Amino acid sequence: MPGNTFGHLFRVTTAGESHGPGYVCIVDGMPAGIPLDASDLQGDLDRRRPGQSKVTTQRREGDEAEILSGVFEGHTTGTPVAVLIRNHDQRSRDYGNLSETYRPGHADFTFDAKYGIRDHRGGGRSSARETAVRVAAGAMAKKLLAIVHGVSVVGYVRQIGHLKADIPDPAAVTLESVEQNIVRCPDPATAEAMVSLIESARADGDSIGGIGEIVATGVPPGWGDPVFDKLKADLGKALFSLPAVLGVEYGAGFDVATARGSDNNDLFSSQNTDSAGHRGQPPMVPGGKRIVTETNRHGGMLGGISSGMPIVLRCAVKPTSSLPRDQQTVTRRAEATTVATHGRHDPCLLPRFVPMAEAMVAITLADHFLRQQAATGPSRS
Amino acid sequence: MPGNTFGHLFRVTTAGESHGPGYVCIVDGMPAGIPLDASDLQGDLDRRRPGQSKVTTQRREGDEAEILSGVFEGHTTGTPVAVLIRNHDQRSRDYGNLSETYRPGHADFTFDAKYGIRDHRGGGRSSARETAVRVAAGAMAKKLLAIVHGVSVVGYVRQIGHLKADIPDPAAVTLESVEQNIVRCPDPATAEAMVSLIESARADGDSIGGIGEIVATGVPPGWGDPVFDKLKADLGKALFSLPAVLGVEYGAGFDVATARGSDNNDLFSSQNTDSAGHRGQPPMVPGGKRIVTETNRHGGMLGGISSGMPIVLRCAVKPTSSLPRDQQTVTRRAEATTVATHGRHDPCLLPRFVPMAEAMVAITLADHFLRQQAATGPSRS
Amino acid sequence: MPGNTFGHLFRVTTAGESHGPGYVCIVDGMPAGIPLDASDLQGDLDRRRPGQSKVTTQRREGDEAEILSGVFEGHTTGTPVAVLIRNHDQRSRDYGNLSETYRPGHADFTFDAKYGIRDHRGGGRSSARETAVRVAAGAMAKKLLAIVHGVSVVGYVRQIGHLKADIPDPAAVTLESVEQNIVRCPDPATAEAMVSLIESARADGDSIGGIGEIVATGVPPGWGDPVFDKLKADLGKALFSLPAVLGVEYGAGFDVATARGSDNNDLFSSQNTDSAGHRGQPPMVPGGKRIVTETNRHGGMLGGISSGMPIVLRCAVKPTSSLPRDQQTVTRRAEATTVATHGRHDPCLLPRFVPMAEAMVAITLADHFLRQQAATGPSRS
Amino acid sequence: MPGNTFGHLFRVTTAGESHGPGYVCIVDGMPAGIPLDASDLQGDLDRRRPGQSKVTTQRREGDEAEILSGVFEGHTTGTPVAVLIRNHDQRSRDYGNLSETYRPGHADFTFDAKYGIRDHRGGGRSSARETAVRVAAGAMAKKLLAIVHGVSVVGYVRQIGHLKADIPDPAAVTLESVEQNIVRCPDPATAEAMVSLIESARADGDSIGGIGEIVATGVPPGWGDPVFDKLKADLGKALFSLPAVLGVEYGAGFDVATARGSDNNDLFSSQNTDSAGHRGQPPMVPGGKRIVTETNRHGGMLGGISSGMPIVLRCAVKPTSSLPRDQQTVTRRAEATTVATHGRHDPCLLPRFVPMAEAMVAITLADHFLRQQAATGPSRS
Repeated sequence: MPGNTFGHLFRVTTAGESHGPGYVCIVDGMPAGIPLDASDLQGDLDRRRPGQSKVTTQRREGDEAEILSGVFEGHTTGTPVAVLIRNHDQRSRDYGNLSETYRPGHADFTFDAKYGIRDHRGGGRSSARETAVRVAAGAMAKKLLAIVHGVSVVGYVRQIGHLKADIPDPAAVTLESVEQNIVRCPDPATAEAMVSLIESARADGDSIGGIGEIVATGVPPGWGDPVFDKLKADLGKALFSLPAVLGVEYGAGFDVATARGSDNNDLFSSQNTDSAGHRGQPPMVPGGKRIVTETNRHGGMLGGISSGMPIVLRCAVKPTSSLPRDQQTVTRRAEATTVATHGRHDPCLLPRFVPMAEAMVAITLADHFLRQQAATGPSRS
Repeated sequence: MPGNTFGHLFRVTTAGESHGPGYVCIVDGMPAGIPLDASDLQGDLDRRRPGQSKVTTQRREGDEAEILSGVFEGHTTGTPVAVLIRNHDQRSRDYGNLSETYRPGHADFTFDAKYGIRDHRGGGRSSARETAVRVAAGAMAKKLLAIVHGVSVVGYVRQIGHLKADIPDPAAVTLESVEQNIVRCPDPATAEAMVSLIESARADGDSIGGIGEIVATGVPPGWGDPVFDKLKADLGKALFSLPAVLGVEYGAGFDVATARGSDNNDLFSSQNTDSAGHRGQPPMVPGGKRIVTETNRHGGMLGGISSGMPIVLRCAVKPTSSLPRDQQTVTRRAEATTVATHGRHDPCLLPRFVPMAEAMVAITLADHFLRQQAATGPSRS
Repeated sequence: MPGNTFGHLFRVTTAGESHGPGYVCIVDGMPAGIPLDASDLQGDLDRRRPGQSKVTTQRREGDEAEILSGVFEGHTTGTPVAVLIRNHDQRSRDYGNLSETYRPGHADFTFDAKYGIRDHRGGGRSSARETAVRVAAGAMAKKLLAIVHGVSVVGYVRQIGHLKADIPDPAAVTLESVEQNIVRCPDPATAEAMVSLIESARADGDSIGGIGEIVATGVPPGWGDPVFDKLKADLGKALFSLPAVLGVEYGAGFDVATARGSDNNDLFSSQNTDSAGHRGQPPMVPGGKRIVTETNRHGGMLGGISSGMPIVLRCAVKPTSSLPRDQQTVTRRAEATTVATHGRHDPCLLPRFVPMAEAMVAITLADHFLRQQAATGPSRS
Repeated sequence: MPGNTFGHLFRVTTAGESHGPGYVCIVDGMPAGIPLDASDLQGDLDRRRPGQSKVTTQRREGDEAEILSGVFEGHTTGTPVAVLIRNHDQRSRDYGNLSETYRPGHADFTFDAKYGIRDHRGGGRSSARETAVRVAAGAMAKKLLAIVHGVSVVGYVRQIGHLKADIPDPAAVTLESVEQNIVRCPDPATAEAMVSLIESARADGDSIGGIGEIVATGVPPGWGDPVFDKLKADLGKALFSLPAVLGVEYGAGFDVATARGSDNNDLFSSQNTDSAGHRGQPPMVPGGKRIVTETNRHGGMLGGISSGMPIVLRCAVKPTSSLPRDQQTVTRRAEATTVATHGRHDPCLLPRFVPMAEAMVAITLADHFLRQQAATGPSRS
């Protein structure tokens, strides 16, 4: 089973390498009648693209998306939407000396072991540049979710190194507050310190890791398919499929290890639906009430099915593996050597990770929206 | 897309509810010619079954597996292997008063929101009892992996509450050392304290969470499919599909957030293959050498593809939601009420979680073994 | 990719062999809230079972279905429905001498070539007995289709040997008219001749082929997914997946080879929806009208999508391969020998083929009903 | 489940419409190390393209394929191969008057019923132009099959109208003999008559149907997955997924309806492998012998698994629906009207159908080659 497709009913297939002619994705399952043009994709592509600020790589790539199919007179037709992003700034000469050497922390060795072929041009298929077309697909998913259920997916940087943002209410974070600084942390004071920390890591010829958090509001109760395709399972897979992610948690996450049940259980109560609660949830009960939990340690999913509370996820993102300093390694013939990667790399992946993670969450939710609609029709979903 | 199937080439489909006639799984893709009979499944089923010790639920279920198909004269035939486990100790009267009330921390509310139907008999499809047939399927996967590559999958309890086990080398933990105590922690001193902690939680009418760790040794380099079906992504999904898991990490996990690249990268070197290194990895290079990393912060996967180093994963498991004390909740009509669950429940899920997690890891690896064999034939895998 | 699963949203997985303990199927995707119990499955199982009349095999199998899961208080719960059918009349001694010999026309040789293992007990996994659980799954699909859209799936025998039934209007054939004779041909005069022809073939120690026809009425326009999963493509696969089928056609079928476009095109016109037209089609246009074709050479599908006209398919079914006379063949070691199969076999497969084909058509339609509901919700489907 | 993907391990996804910017396909699962460049695709694309001879449409489309990914230094890398074919001769004005009218025999009405949107530009997604990228994918599949097993897939025209070709041995037909005339019939005398028949249909403002035959030689015994994914089932689906196909049969096909078992069974015997038998089959037995059948009424598949004999399939292809004469129809509002399609259309689809059908057969076989390799490794496949 080749692994370049994600999702079942909202299904994204990607192709392309960092130094080939370009990337393409096919989004199959986008319903008919949704307004869409290339400009809808460009916003998130610009948030993901290299060279956007001083805390990212200085590589410059336009990342312009061309829609090849599936849209007619400004609306989707129900047939697959293909998106093409050409590569321009390939600079493969930067990588020429890598053809025989495995960079630490990269997929050079494992791809070689898998395929018996070494495409040494800057990561080839394993390059994070592949996420550009995922972000385009994610922008479609966001548009669909917003139209059908008012669902919103917002990500931000929660932690870089030891610097932790203060985010009193994840569900209240807006795209605007995230985009107000180059590090994408909605806590302005911590954001400033994060920028300094990243610049200091870069000055040291080093890199630094962090944690991204993604919140989806407006998801109604009932999405997610027991038992293997629990919403948490598919979201977990989606986020682990991103480069550099070594951990995923939702709700209370790893903190549950030290909790007692009496503290960890979120208690149910009810709200009037005209209250200022979270958007998009349909009333499940008579009398204009809806059922909520008083806390959200369960991160919006119980039994792997959405509860109507905000879905809150976090990803641990490792520090960039490419470093402009000599690191010990071996050649394809197992001879000891060193390697320094002098290409232009992000000193911290987190600021550009945010739109990638949002995209994967949105794609997963769009898939489960359609799955739930398949089972029940729109009336209950 | 209904969600009761896992895997593509080693494909497990399950059915059954906690208080129906029984559970069945169909394992499709088990290669022909593997020795197999019901006794091969029973070992792990006994490790998972309720009532096995004083730190688990006292519910007694035999969990006897009957193989219905796919085996002829003691060997698999290449056709699907179906396994049936009948329910015996159903005691549905314990749950009778729950038909209108949502238990905190359980899937009662979300299943009702999803299906519009309330199967109130002890969790129905969301019951952890469903994992019995997964464990049976996992036992087949383990057998396949052991035969074709000498792969071994061993899990254990890493942490309960604040008690953390001291495990100097995860890859050196054996099934025997895990099974030497009832809490399944290979650090005997900590294990003893864990037993006391669980008993104390139970005495308080409460429950306690923890962390399980699973290690796979012998996986050769090259398993895992870029870009969406990275091995880490499919393992992540597999583990998140288990009940009560709120976090998954591998290798250095969430610790990468505070790391610098120069510390986090695992450096490559080479070993002679007659050294005492990890089992099962084929030589990738001439001269009887193989390529390894000197540390294993990457947890055995780079770019989502196995590196030949031990695969090390951890899961955060929440404290049992069922508590024998009144908890605030609501009815299906959103009326405030309380609920106490007087059934017999595990005060801590971790000891029985271990074989469940091993099963999901083994199933995922078996699937990727076959995927790699599809792409390359056995010569390189 | 193991091949024991059919469908995507209404997904049927089967396991079992003719001389093992039994057969099981798991139907995943049956929506919640549909009335269902074992008696709903028994009608079609009785139509399929051996020993039902003098024109079928005299083997006696009860084929009693036990529902193991997915039903609570007489209604489906939305979770997978597992069905178990035990084998009773196994008589494996009838087959003992076949362990080294390949029967002509059977899958003995090809299974051996595929798996390297010879399960010689009466066909093993390739036995037509496997269709029993498909028929059970098909009965669920029929029930779903009837409830949600008034869709009806009826099959019958169109031809045996050179005897062709006279069926003026395929869409008018009812289950009752089919079941009025043992050969399942709704043209009583031809049916009588067919019975004689079958008995004469049996008396000769021979068998005879034929053609089955299946008609689905009530399917609304819009089911089927371009481009690969056209409804005709999935129906074609479904029917070719049945044993002994060497040809499938729909509408005018192979007759289109000799047709000119001006004769072959079905012309569009409109009908008032209160007319006595075919059941279940929703009005597509204002004013209570609907769009129909004046003829139905297109067999109810255009561009692979249902048109609202009756879906009409035909299958060519070969004569039974098992013959009670010596046939030339070889052993596993390629030595020349002869084989006669003295088990009890159908002299003509067609009468029992009818419920099998209905089942596969119903399963395919149920899958596409859910697929269309996924894309659009119930309003337009 | 959107329907634009075919195959599991050799997986083809297509996108594009006849009057949009272009078509793209992503072939996922092509093994690493296969020599490939764009010229490998062009041969079959030229056989499929419009305007190639006087018996096809005079529309001129270059159909130049650009490989966007998956190839490095002239060899496949194991990552997905994306192919882009731009549209040039769009002439959408030819279709402007069709926005409100349904053409008989086309998918206009059914697409509108499905999606609620009318992309009236010459068929949109339902246009046979979509098969261009399938043909490109098929060329890759052919290359893979030829390299790994010496498998050859050759198609030709068997019948047009009442003119039937005389083909004594389907397995002996070569690409060269097919390409020696513009109608792609390897019986030169009949080919000449076919050309006249097509020209006469065109002169009448009409079109004519026919039958295409496809033969695969060199497929070893053992490909195909019981029970639903029989090779015959997947081939049947593959061919029914092509536009205009109303019937598919293999081997004796519909002729089995009138056959007796004693005539229909193909008897087994053995051959020395140095004999002039069919190509590519591995010896299954000791002593340099292999098992064959003396006739091939089973069309190379028994129990849905390849037998090592040539695979022989036939498709019934309807006459082109587009006619340059007034045909009765209705508008979207069900008003009676007439339509004549003055675009440039093929008077007979068969000559250009041949490479399309070869492509679908090759893609299906490539998928099953990998599936068999997954189960057994290359040693037995």
